[in-house]
Amino acid sequence: MSLRRSWVDSANSADTDFPLNNLPYGVFSTAQDTQPRCGVAIGDTILDLAAVEAAGLIDLPGGPLMDLGRWNPVMAAGQEVWAALRNRLTDLLAEGAAEEGDLRPHLVAQADAVMHLPFDVAEYTDFYASYHHATNVGTMFRGAENALPPNWLSIPIGYNGRASSVCISGTDIRRPWGQLKGPNDDAPRFAPCNRFDIELELGAIVGTSSTGPVTVAQADEMIFGYVLLNDWSARDIQAWEYQPLGPFQAKATATSLSPWIVTRAALEPFRTGTPERQRDLLDYLKEPGPMLYEIDLAVDLAPDGADPVTIARTNYDQMYYSAAQQLAHHTTSGCPMRTGDLLGSGTISGPEKDQRGSLLELSWGGKEPFAVGDQTRSFVEDGDTLTLRGAAKGDGYRVGFGACTNRVQPALPDPYAR
Amino acid sequence: MSLRRSWVDSANSADTDFPLNNLPYGVFSTAQDTQPRCGVAIGDTILDLAAVEAAGLIDLPGGPLMDLGRWNPVMAAGQEVWAALRNRLTDLLAEGAAEEGDLRPHLVAQADAVMHLPFDVAEYTDFYASYHHATNVGTMFRGAENALPPNWLSIPIGYNGRASSVCISGTDIRRPWGQLKGPNDDAPRFAPCNRFDIELELGAIVGTSSTGPVTVAQADEMIFGYVLLNDWSARDIQAWEYQPLGPFQAKATATSLSPWIVTRAALEPFRTGTPERQRDLLDYLKEPGPMLYEIDLAVDLAPDGADPVTIARTNYDQMYYSAAQQLAHHTTSGCPMRTGDLLGSGTISGPEKDQRGSLLELSWGGKEPFAVGDQTRSFVEDGDTLTLRGAAKGDGYRVGFGACTNRVQPALPDPYAR
Repeated sequence: MSLRRSWVDSANSADTDFPLNNLPYGVFSTAQDTQPRCGVAIGDTILDLAAVEAAGLIDLPGGPLMDLGRWNPVMAAGQEVWAALRNRLTDLLAEGAAEEGDLRPHLVAQADAVMHLPFDVAEYTDFYASYHHATNVGTMFRGAENALPPNWLSIPIGYNGRASSVCISGTDIRRPWGQLKGPNDDAPRFAPCNRFDIELELGAIVGTSSTGPVTVAQADEMIFGYVLLNDWSARDIQAWEYQPLGPFQAKATATSLSPWIVTRAALEPFRTGTPERQRDLLDYLKEPGPMLYEIDLAVDLAPDGADPVTIARTNYDQMYYSAAQQLAHHTTSGCPMRTGDLLGSGTISGPEKDQRGSLLELSWGGKEPFAVGDQTRSFVEDGDTLTLRGAAKGDGYRVGFGACTNRVQPALPDPYAR
Repeated sequence: MSLRRSWVDSANSADTDFPLNNLPYGVFSTAQDTQPRCGVAIGDTILDLAAVEAAGLIDLPGGPLMDLGRWNPVMAAGQEVWAALRNRLTDLLAEGAAEEGDLRPHLVAQADAVMHLPFDVAEYTDFYASYHHATNVGTMFRGAENALPPNWLSIPIGYNGRASSVCISGTDIRRPWGQLKGPNDDAPRFAPCNRFDIELELGAIVGTSSTGPVTVAQADEMIFGYVLLNDWSARDIQAWEYQPLGPFQAKATATSLSPWIVTRAALEPFRTGTPERQRDLLDYLKEPGPMLYEIDLAVDLAPDGADPVTIARTNYDQMYYSAAQQLAHHTTSGCPMRTGDLLGSGTISGPEKDQRGSLLELSWGGKEPFAVGDQTRSFVEDGDTLTLRGAAKGDGYRVGFGACTNRVQPALPDPYAR
């Protein structure tokens, strides 16, 4: 597939994340109109969909669906509505569209917009499903012989995260306090996290709900779209707390998302399969077709006052399990899934050193600090700005996610000091 | 404190769970009016609070707050509103109240009511905080020498559960399918759970929200009330999946709640302290006063067609950590807490064999099946009805929780059979 041309000139550049082929959904406000509302990114602008719907230029069954500052009503409306909206937007924004004059007043420069969380997060589940990430972490903690847990090749391992801590790109991330115990400590102490980290992930967003077990094919069709996801992680808190019931406060400070939901439809040309199985999967996890996507991913780190340096590059095709497999597994117990459920892929790491999606891996547990410009890092430092970027690459165009950017703020004074 | 008398005769019995001293909050509907609405239990009746508020007999700041079928608006309104409502209800329902005639038309027999979940669950966190439960489970899995994980005496260990699976007493519980691997299996298989179990817990309900770390005293004041909570658990699924990131599908089939929220105010006379510490706690977890409650708890099991048999009796005072400590710990990372968050205490077990709050413990991992009338049990069987009961005992009265009762249905046919 090649670039589809739009009457919005900036959407026709080979370098934009948001050509007509993409049409990702977000929620924005402006200084002139501070009410958050639904919009679609096109080139370097946003089309105000609440206004366009109110003007009668889009007419969805059950509408209006875009007058609230969240995409949940569209997400719940299901695949036919998703297709109708995408088709209509493709027509409206195509080069030569008769509606150009009616639509131009509803374009807002992205530079003038404040972005908000694009949907209400119902619940958040995080997985551990990249082979190289699991192998790296397992090797560090248990040695190369026992790197992968016995169940890893059979189950997309996941745990429930904390939806209340999900925030949008641009939110400052405050270094947390927590209970931790270093390897040389006799007793635990309450202290600021000293091994604060990121995790490069893709988040899959559940559109339509389910009440019983679903197949991988059904799960794929429930997914509305994807965002970049940074699962901020306090490694020293995690090390002390996670046995026997998993990570808890180590993962509850923040999980940040890129502002634009890239729809499954936009990613369709980039489908690819999961890697060859190292152990046969049970039938319920077998994929009926390619369920991953070729998406180039990168992490930039900018020390306070310095230029950003790309510290990792990888690809979503490195996942051992797809979001559809994860979602299908999530339903096996009868667990109801709801509109707005968010599934983190798990940290995405490739086989090479510079393809690792966390500082834990890049610095090998802090033992091998790595260069960031003229500085070094083991974990993130106060004042660092971390940016995730991602795009699927087509012929002369890209379907991009925009950036997920957050700056790390120093820990507050002891919240329990008297 | 002694019994407060009400003009509702059935509320003056020493045997009712719902005297004037209690005033627990629920959501109900009837065959005549199927709209779920807020009510308060008094004796064997329910006072329809949506109707009483509409009639102008209760006037809360920011009201109406009870016209929706959920308590969240009252919960979010904060302690002053909670106190105002309880005081007003105590006056309205007291023996000799002038409003008796106005209120009588708004009484509904509990026998005629269908109960609904009393609040929208925001997120659900489950803890592992009873010393005897943790010791029993640890001994079974790791031996008596290593029963308690190293962090257990320092942290109220918790993990995030699945809010979408929380249901009300009376809901049938379907035996789940899942991926499991028995000790004698070469490979995992997808099969119905063969070790299905219950967990006797108390659930604490967060009323007011927080955005940063809170003290134990502040946490206690955020708690709106308590319910009985049965955390249904698939032990064979759990055993295979839980390393390294904790329980996931094993706990996602159902968590059932008793229908009446017993307020913190009603439990005030029954406060008691946590047991003596076996290891000093860090300052942030120290309690400024007694944060547990003396609440007698019991589990009944009725095999299909047979009478119920009490299989366990214990007390909430067996907890090593209080809900206030758990909630304070939950906020240390900066994790935002919201109105409607539900915190499960963790299985409550006492030191004696018949004080164990799960069948896993009662049957010692299935190795010591126990008698239930003329039958035996290792885990729950299809057709079994499990009932949790609980009450704080005053002088001639009880503050009861009602029952949390659910029947186990057989697993469905293979959901993935072609």
